[in-house]
Amino acid sequence: MLELYYAPETCALATHIALEDAGADYRLHRVDFGKGEQRSADFLAVNPKGRVPALATARGILTETPAMLAFLAQSYPDAGLAPLDDPFAFARLQAFNSYLCATLHVAHAHRMRGHRWADEPEAIAAMQRKVPEAVGACWAYVEDEAFAGPFVMGAAYTIADPYLFTLAQWMEGDGVDPARFPKVAAHRAMMGERESVRAALRAEAG
Amino acid sequence: MLELYYAPETCALATHIALEDAGADYRLHRVDFGKGEQRSADFLAVNPKGRVPALATARGILTETPAMLAFLAQSYPDAGLAPLDDPFAFARLQAFNSYLCATLHVAHAHRMRGHRWADEPEAIAAMQRKVPEAVGACWAYVEDEAFAGPFVMGAAYTIADPYLFTLAQWMEGDGVDPARFPKVAAHRAMMGERESVRAALRAEAG
Repeated sequence: MLELYYAPETCALATHIALEDAGADYRLHRVDFGKGEQRSADFLAVNPKGRVPALATARGILTETPAMLAFLAQSYPDAGLAPLDDPFAFARLQAFNSYLCATLHVAHAHRMRGHRWADEPEAIAAMQRKVPEAVGACWAYVEDEAFAGPFVMGAAYTIADPYLFTLAQWMEGDGVDPARFPKVAAHRAMMGERESVRAALRAEAG
Repeated sequence: MLELYYAPETCALATHIALEDAGADYRLHRVDFGKGEQRSADFLAVNPKGRVPALATARGILTETPAMLAFLAQSYPDAGLAPLDDPFAFARLQAFNSYLCATLHVAHAHRMRGHRWADEPEAIAAMQRKVPEAVGACWAYVEDEAFAGPFVMGAAYTIADPYLFTLAQWMEGDGVDPARFPKVAAHRAMMGERESVRAALRAEAG
Protein backbone atom coordinates (compact mmCIF):
# COMPACT_ATOMS: atom_id res chain seq x y z
CA MET A 1 0.00 0.00 0.00
CA LEU A 2 1.38 3.38 -1.05
CA GLU A 3 0.50 6.49 0.95
CA LEU A 4 0.53 9.92 -0.66
CA TYR A 5 1.00 12.97 1.54
CA TYR A 6 -0.59 15.85 -0.32
CA ALA A 7 -2.21 19.24 0.01
CA PRO A 8 -4.84 20.55 -2.38
CA GLU A 9 -3.73 22.86 -5.18
CA THR A 10 -0.11 21.73 -4.96
CA CYS A 11 1.98 19.74 -7.40
CA ALA A 12 1.05 16.62 -5.40
CA LEU A 13 -1.92 16.37 -7.76
CA ALA A 14 0.40 15.05 -10.50
CA THR A 15 1.43 12.04 -8.44
CA HIS A 16 -2.15 11.58 -7.27
CA ILE A 17 -3.40 11.35 -10.86
CA ALA A 18 -0.54 8.99 -11.77
CA LEU A 19 -1.48 6.71 -8.86
CA GLU A 20 -4.95 6.52 -10.39
CA ASP A 21 -3.52 5.94 -13.87
CA ALA A 22 -1.29 3.17 -12.53
CA GLY A 23 -4.18 1.43 -10.81
CA ALA A 24 -2.14 1.49 -7.61
CA ASP A 25 -3.48 0.54 -4.22
CA TYR A 26 -2.95 3.75 -2.25
CA ARG A 27 -4.19 5.90 0.58
CA LEU A 28 -4.19 9.70 0.90
CA HIS A 29 -2.91 11.78 3.83
CA ARG A 30 -3.95 15.40 3.65
CA VAL A 31 -1.37 17.81 5.10
CA ASP A 32 -3.12 20.95 6.38
CA PHE A 33 -1.02 23.91 5.25
CA GLY A 34 -3.50 26.25 6.99
CA LYS A 35 -2.43 24.76 10.31
CA GLY A 36 1.25 24.60 9.27
CA GLU A 37 1.22 20.79 9.46
CA GLN A 38 4.01 20.63 6.87
CA ARG A 39 6.32 22.01 9.59
CA SER A 40 5.03 19.69 12.35
CA ALA A 41 7.36 17.19 13.97
CA ASP A 42 5.14 14.35 12.75
CA PHE A 43 5.38 15.42 9.13
CA LEU A 44 9.06 16.35 9.27
CA ALA A 45 9.66 12.76 10.38
CA VAL A 46 8.04 11.70 7.10
CA ASN A 47 9.69 14.35 4.92
CA PRO A 48 12.47 16.48 6.45
CA LYS A 49 12.01 18.96 3.59
CA GLY A 50 8.67 19.96 5.11
CA ARG A 51 6.95 19.92 1.75
CA VAL A 52 4.44 17.87 -0.17
CA PRO A 53 4.20 15.59 -2.00
CA ALA A 54 5.79 12.64 -0.26
CA LEU A 55 5.05 9.03 -1.10
CA ALA A 56 5.40 6.43 1.64
CA THR A 57 6.28 2.98 0.34
CA ALA A 58 7.03 -0.30 2.08
CA ARG A 59 10.74 0.51 1.67
CA GLY A 60 10.68 4.16 2.69
CA ILE A 61 9.73 7.64 1.63
CA LEU A 62 10.04 9.09 -1.85
CA THR A 63 9.92 12.78 -2.67
CA GLU A 64 10.32 15.00 -5.75
CA THR A 65 7.58 14.76 -8.34
CA PRO A 66 9.75 13.70 -11.33
CA ALA A 67 11.22 10.85 -9.27
CA MET A 68 7.85 9.69 -7.94
CA LEU A 69 6.29 9.78 -11.40
CA ALA A 70 9.11 7.68 -12.87
CA PHE A 71 8.78 5.32 -9.90
CA LEU A 72 5.10 4.77 -10.62
CA ALA A 73 5.75 4.23 -14.33
CA GLN A 74 8.46 1.67 -13.56
CA SER A 75 6.53 -0.03 -10.74
CA TYR A 76 3.33 -0.43 -12.80
CA PRO A 77 4.71 -1.21 -16.25
CA ASP A 78 1.39 -2.63 -17.48
CA ALA A 79 -0.13 0.84 -17.19
CA GLY A 80 2.15 2.02 -20.01
CA LEU A 81 2.93 5.39 -18.44
CA ALA A 82 6.45 5.80 -19.89
CA PRO A 83 8.67 4.36 -22.67
CA LEU A 84 10.53 2.18 -20.20
CA ASP A 85 12.59 0.23 -22.74
CA ASP A 86 13.87 3.24 -24.68
CA PRO A 87 16.46 5.29 -22.77
CA PHE A 88 16.32 8.18 -25.25
CA ALA A 89 12.53 8.47 -25.20
CA PHE A 90 12.53 8.06 -21.42
CA ALA A 91 15.13 10.84 -21.16
CA ARG A 92 13.04 13.17 -23.32
CA LEU A 93 10.11 12.52 -21.02
CA GLN A 94 12.23 13.05 -17.93
CA ALA A 95 13.70 16.26 -19.39
CA PHE A 96 10.19 17.62 -19.82
CA ASN A 97 9.28 16.77 -16.24
CA SER A 98 12.55 18.20 -14.95
CA TYR A 99 11.82 21.47 -16.76
CA LEU A 100 8.39 21.65 -15.14
CA CYS A 101 9.94 20.98 -11.72
CA ALA A 102 13.07 23.15 -11.85
CA THR A 103 12.00 26.02 -14.13
CA LEU A 104 8.22 26.39 -14.49
CA HIS A 105 7.28 25.43 -10.92
CA VAL A 106 10.18 27.52 -9.61
CA ALA A 107 9.05 30.58 -11.60
CA HIS A 108 5.54 30.10 -10.18
CA ALA A 109 6.88 29.72 -6.64
CA HIS A 110 8.15 33.30 -6.71
CA ARG A 111 4.52 34.43 -6.34
CA MET A 112 3.86 32.88 -2.93
CA ARG A 113 7.22 31.60 -1.70
CA GLY A 114 9.51 34.55 -2.39
CA HIS A 115 10.66 34.42 1.24
CA ARG A 116 12.78 31.43 0.24
CA TRP A 117 15.06 33.70 -1.79
CA ALA A 118 14.88 37.17 -0.19
CA ASP A 119 13.97 38.70 3.17
CA GLU A 120 12.88 42.23 2.27
CA PRO A 121 9.15 42.71 1.54
CA GLU A 122 10.01 45.01 -1.37
CA ALA A 123 12.10 42.29 -2.99
CA ILE A 124 9.36 39.73 -2.46
CA ALA A 125 6.88 42.13 -4.06
CA ALA A 126 9.27 42.63 -7.00
CA MET A 127 9.38 38.87 -7.54
CA GLN A 128 5.59 38.72 -7.49
CA ARG A 129 5.36 41.45 -10.12
CA LYS A 130 7.56 39.46 -12.51
CA VAL A 131 5.66 36.16 -12.15
CA PRO A 132 3.32 36.73 -15.12
CA GLU A 133 6.31 37.39 -17.40
CA ALA A 134 8.60 34.66 -16.01
CA VAL A 135 5.90 31.98 -15.85
CA GLY A 136 4.52 33.11 -19.21
CA ALA A 137 7.94 32.56 -20.80
CA CYS A 138 7.95 29.02 -19.44
CA TRP A 139 4.52 28.34 -20.93
CA ALA A 140 5.70 29.76 -24.25
CA TYR A 141 8.60 27.29 -24.21
CA VAL A 142 6.21 24.41 -23.47
CA GLU A 143 3.73 25.50 -26.14
CA ASP A 144 6.26 26.29 -28.87
CA GLU A 145 9.08 23.81 -28.29
CA ALA A 146 8.29 20.96 -25.94
CA PHE A 147 4.68 19.91 -26.44
CA ALA A 148 4.17 17.30 -29.19
CA GLY A 149 0.41 16.80 -28.93
CA PRO A 150 -2.16 15.56 -28.38
CA PHE A 151 -0.33 14.33 -25.30
CA VAL A 152 2.88 15.96 -24.11
CA MET A 153 5.17 13.42 -25.73
CA GLY A 154 2.96 12.70 -28.73
CA ALA A 155 0.45 9.95 -29.36
CA ALA A 156 0.94 8.18 -26.03
CA TYR A 157 -0.21 9.32 -22.60
CA THR A 158 2.73 9.42 -20.17
CA ILE A 159 3.61 10.68 -16.71
CA ALA A 160 4.31 14.09 -18.29
CA ASP A 161 0.57 14.60 -18.86
CA PRO A 162 -0.68 14.70 -15.26
CA TYR A 163 2.30 16.90 -14.35
CA LEU A 164 1.57 19.41 -17.13
CA PHE A 165 -2.13 19.40 -16.27
CA THR A 166 -1.33 20.05 -12.60
CA LEU A 167 0.88 23.06 -13.24
CA ALA A 168 -1.58 24.42 -15.83
CA GLN A 169 -4.11 24.81 -13.00
CA TRP A 170 -1.96 27.69 -11.70
CA MET A 171 -1.91 29.70 -14.93
CA GLU A 172 -4.71 32.15 -14.13
CA GLY A 173 -3.44 32.70 -10.59
CA ASP A 174 -0.03 33.52 -12.01
CA GLY A 175 -1.52 36.17 -14.29
CA VAL A 176 -0.91 34.18 -17.46
CA ASP A 177 -3.71 34.17 -20.05
CA PRO A 178 -4.43 30.56 -21.10
CA ALA A 179 -5.66 31.81 -24.49
CA ARG A 180 -2.02 32.53 -25.42
CA PHE A 181 -1.28 28.81 -25.33
CA PRO A 182 -3.92 26.94 -27.33
CA LYS A 183 -2.11 23.57 -27.36
CA VAL A 184 -1.74 23.60 -23.59
CA ALA A 185 -5.34 24.76 -23.21
CA ALA A 186 -6.62 21.90 -25.40
CA HIS A 187 -4.55 19.43 -23.38
CA ARG A 188 -5.94 20.83 -20.15
CA ALA A 189 -9.52 20.48 -21.38
CA MET A 190 -8.89 16.92 -22.58
CA MET A 191 -7.22 15.95 -19.32
CA GLY A 192 -10.08 17.43 -17.33
CA GLU A 193 -12.38 14.80 -18.87
CA ARG A 194 -10.10 11.90 -18.01
CA GLU A 195 -11.43 9.60 -15.30
CA SER A 196 -8.12 9.42 -13.37
CA VAL A 197 -8.01 13.22 -13.25
CA ARG A 198 -11.62 13.54 -12.17
CA ALA A 199 -11.14 10.94 -9.45
CA ALA A 200 -8.09 12.71 -8.07
CA LEU A 201 -9.77 16.12 -8.14
CA ARG A 202 -12.87 14.72 -6.43
CA ALA A 203 -10.76 13.18 -3.67
CA GLU A 204 -8.82 16.41 -3.09
CA ALA A 205 -12.03 18.47 -2.99
CA GLY A 206 -13.71 16.06 -0.55
CA MET B 1 28.91 9.73 -31.00
CA LEU B 2 27.43 11.93 -28.28
CA GLU B 3 28.19 15.66 -28.23
CA LEU B 4 28.06 17.66 -25.01
CA TYR B 5 27.48 21.39 -25.20
CA TYR B 6 28.98 22.86 -22.05
CA ALA B 7 30.50 25.90 -20.46
CA PRO B 8 33.12 25.77 -17.72
CA GLU B 9 31.95 26.14 -14.12
CA THR B 10 28.37 25.21 -14.96
CA CYS B 11 26.34 22.14 -14.03
CA ALA B 12 27.38 20.66 -17.40
CA LEU B 13 30.37 19.24 -15.52
CA ALA B 14 28.13 16.59 -13.97
CA THR B 15 27.17 15.13 -17.35
CA HIS B 16 30.75 15.51 -18.55
CA ILE B 17 32.03 13.41 -15.66
CA ALA B 18 29.27 10.84 -16.21
CA LEU B 19 30.25 10.55 -19.88
CA GLU B 20 33.74 9.68 -18.67
CA ASP B 21 32.36 7.25 -16.08
CA ALA B 22 30.23 5.58 -18.75
CA GLY B 23 33.15 5.16 -21.10
CA ALA B 24 31.09 6.89 -23.77
CA ASP B 25 32.43 8.00 -27.13
CA TYR B 26 31.77 11.73 -27.01
CA ARG B 27 32.91 15.13 -28.20
CA LEU B 28 32.78 18.49 -26.41
CA HIS B 29 31.41 21.78 -27.72
CA ARG B 30 32.32 24.76 -25.59
CA VAL B 31 29.66 27.48 -25.49
CA ASP B 32 31.30 30.86 -24.83
CA PHE B 33 29.12 32.65 -22.29
CA GLY B 34 31.50 35.64 -22.44
CA LYS B 35 30.44 36.16 -26.05
CA GLY B 36 26.79 35.35 -25.30
CA GLU B 37 26.94 32.27 -27.52
CA GLN B 38 24.17 30.64 -25.48
CA ARG B 39 21.79 33.20 -27.03
CA SER B 40 23.13 32.81 -30.61
CA ALA B 41 20.86 31.51 -33.37
CA ASP B 42 23.21 28.55 -33.86
CA PHE B 43 22.96 27.47 -30.25
CA LEU B 44 19.24 28.20 -29.91
CA ALA B 45 18.77 25.77 -32.81
CA VAL B 46 20.45 23.16 -30.62
CA ASN B 47 18.71 24.12 -27.36
CA PRO B 48 15.86 26.65 -27.50
CA LYS B 49 16.26 27.18 -23.75
CA GLY B 50 19.57 28.95 -24.44
CA ARG B 51 21.30 27.13 -21.62
CA VAL B 52 23.90 24.45 -21.11
CA PRO B 53 24.22 21.55 -20.84
CA ALA B 54 22.72 19.99 -23.93
CA LEU B 55 23.57 16.53 -25.19
CA ALA B 56 23.30 15.83 -28.91
CA THR B 57 22.53 12.21 -29.70
CA ALA B 58 21.86 10.39 -32.95
CA ARG B 59 18.14 10.72 -32.20
CA GLY B 60 18.08 14.32 -31.07
CA ILE B 61 18.94 16.70 -28.27
CA LEU B 62 18.60 16.00 -24.57
CA THR B 63 18.60 18.64 -21.85
CA GLU B 64 18.16 18.80 -18.06
CA THR B 65 20.92 17.28 -16.00
CA PRO B 66 18.83 14.70 -14.11
CA ALA B 67 17.43 13.38 -17.40
CA MET B 68 20.83 13.25 -19.10
CA LEU B 69 22.42 11.47 -16.15
CA ALA B 70 19.68 8.82 -16.10
CA PHE B 71 20.05 8.48 -19.87
CA LEU B 72 23.76 7.75 -19.53
CA ALA B 73 23.17 5.26 -16.73
CA GLN B 74 20.54 3.44 -18.80
CA SER B 75 22.50 3.61 -22.07
CA TYR B 76 25.72 2.26 -20.54
CA PRO B 77 24.41 -0.31 -18.08
CA ASP B 78 27.76 -2.05 -17.79
CA ALA B 79 29.18 1.06 -16.13
CA GLY B 80 26.90 0.41 -13.14
CA LEU B 81 25.99 4.07 -12.62
CA ALA B 82 22.48 3.51 -11.21
CA PRO B 83 20.33 0.72 -9.70
CA LEU B 84 18.51 0.17 -12.98
CA ASP B 85 16.57 -2.91 -11.93
CA ASP B 86 15.20 -1.50 -8.68
CA PRO B 87 12.51 1.18 -9.19
CA PHE B 88 12.57 2.24 -5.54
CA ALA B 89 16.35 2.65 -5.37
CA PHE B 90 16.33 4.37 -8.77
CA ALA B 91 13.64 6.75 -7.50
CA ARG B 92 15.67 7.58 -4.38
CA LEU B 93 18.61 8.40 -6.64
CA GLN B 94 16.44 10.45 -8.96
CA ALA B 95 14.87 12.29 -5.99
CA PHE B 96 18.35 13.31 -4.86
CA ASN B 97 19.25 14.59 -8.31
CA SER B 98 15.92 16.38 -8.64
CA TYR B 99 16.56 18.14 -5.33
CA LEU B 100 19.96 19.31 -6.55
CA CYS B 101 18.40 20.55 -9.79
CA ALA B 102 15.22 22.20 -8.53
CA THR B 103 16.20 23.38 -5.06
CA LEU B 104 19.97 23.62 -4.51
CA HIS B 105 20.91 24.81 -8.01
CA VAL B 106 17.93 27.18 -7.99
CA ALA B 107 18.98 28.68 -4.64
CA HIS B 108 22.49 29.17 -6.07
CA ALA B 109 21.13 30.75 -9.26
CA HIS B 110 19.74 33.67 -7.24
CA ARG B 111 23.31 34.92 -6.89
CA MET B 112 24.00 35.52 -10.60
CA ARG B 113 20.67 35.00 -12.36
CA GLY B 114 18.30 37.04 -10.19
CA HIS B 115 17.13 38.87 -13.31
CA ARG B 116 15.12 35.76 -14.13
CA TRP B 117 12.76 36.47 -11.22
CA ALA B 118 12.81 40.25 -10.66
CA ASP B 119 13.63 43.39 -12.61
CA GLU B 120 14.62 45.89 -9.92
CA PRO B 121 18.32 46.03 -9.02
CA GLU B 122 17.42 46.32 -5.33
CA ALA B 123 15.45 43.08 -5.48
CA ILE B 124 18.26 41.32 -7.29
CA ALA B 125 20.68 42.54 -4.61
CA ALA B 126 18.31 41.28 -1.92
CA MET B 127 18.32 37.83 -3.51
CA GLN B 128 22.12 37.87 -3.59
CA ARG B 129 22.28 38.70 0.11
CA LYS B 130 20.17 35.67 0.98
CA VAL B 131 22.17 33.17 -1.10
CA PRO B 132 24.51 32.09 1.72
CA GLU B 133 21.54 31.30 3.96
CA ALA B 134 19.33 29.71 1.28
CA VAL B 135 22.11 27.64 -0.28
CA GLY B 136 23.50 26.80 3.16
CA ALA B 137 20.11 25.36 4.16
CA CYS B 138 20.20 23.11 1.08
CA TRP B 139 23.66 21.87 1.99
CA ALA B 140 22.46 21.19 5.54
CA TYR B 141 19.65 19.05 4.12
CA VAL B 142 22.12 17.14 1.95
CA GLU B 143 24.60 16.66 4.81
CA ASP B 144 22.07 15.74 7.51
CA GLU B 145 19.33 13.91 5.63
CA ALA B 146 20.19 12.82 2.12
CA PHE B 147 23.84 11.78 1.98
CA ALA B 148 24.47 8.12 2.87
CA GLY B 149 28.25 7.97 2.43
CA PRO B 150 30.86 7.32 1.33
CA PHE B 151 29.03 7.92 -1.96
CA VAL B 152 25.75 9.82 -2.10
CA MET B 153 23.55 6.74 -2.16
CA GLY B 154 25.82 4.56 -0.02
CA ALA B 155 28.43 2.00 -0.96
CA ALA B 156 27.96 2.31 -4.73
CA TYR B 157 29.04 5.19 -6.96
CA THR B 158 26.09 6.50 -8.97
CA ILE B 159 25.12 9.42 -11.19
CA ALA B 160 24.33 11.38 -8.01
CA ASP B 161 28.04 11.63 -7.22
CA PRO B 162 29.26 13.72 -10.16
CA TYR B 163 26.20 15.95 -9.74
CA LEU B 164 26.87 16.56 -6.05
CA PHE B 165 30.57 17.15 -6.73
CA THR B 166 29.70 19.67 -9.46
CA LEU B 167 27.41 21.76 -7.28
CA ALA B 168 29.85 21.56 -4.36
CA GLN B 169 32.34 23.53 -6.49
CA TRP B 170 30.09 26.57 -6.03
CA MET B 171 29.98 26.50 -2.23
CA GLU B 172 32.70 29.07 -1.53
CA GLY B 173 31.39 31.42 -4.21
CA ASP B 174 27.95 31.20 -2.61
CA GLY B 175 29.39 32.24 0.76
CA VAL B 176 28.88 28.83 2.33
CA ASP B 177 31.68 27.49 4.52
CA PRO B 178 32.53 23.91 3.44
CA ALA B 179 33.76 23.16 6.97
CA ARG B 180 30.11 23.13 8.12
CA PHE B 181 29.49 20.05 5.99
CA PRO B 182 32.20 17.47 6.66
CA LYS B 183 30.53 14.57 4.83
CA VAL B 184 30.09 16.65 1.69
CA ALA B 185 33.67 17.94 2.04
CA ALA B 186 35.06 14.41 2.32
CA HIS B 187 33.06 13.35 -0.73
CA ARG B 188 34.36 16.33 -2.66
CA ALA B 189 37.95 15.50 -1.80
CA MET B 190 37.47 11.84 -2.74
CA MET B 191 35.80 12.76 -6.02
CA GLY B 192 38.61 15.17 -6.85
CA GLU B 193 40.98 12.22 -6.97
CA ARG B 194 38.80 10.17 -9.30
CA GLU B 195 40.16 9.76 -12.82
CA SER B 196 36.85 10.56 -14.56
CA VAL B 197 36.61 13.80 -12.59
CA ARG B 198 40.21 14.79 -13.28
CA ALA B 199 39.79 14.08 -17.00
CA ALA B 200 36.66 16.23 -17.21
CA LEU B 201 38.23 19.10 -15.26
CA ARG B 202 41.37 18.95 -17.44
CA ALA B 203 39.29 19.10 -20.61
CA GLU B 204 37.24 22.06 -19.35
CA ALA B 205 40.39 23.95 -18.28
CA GLY B 206 42.10 23.30 -21.62
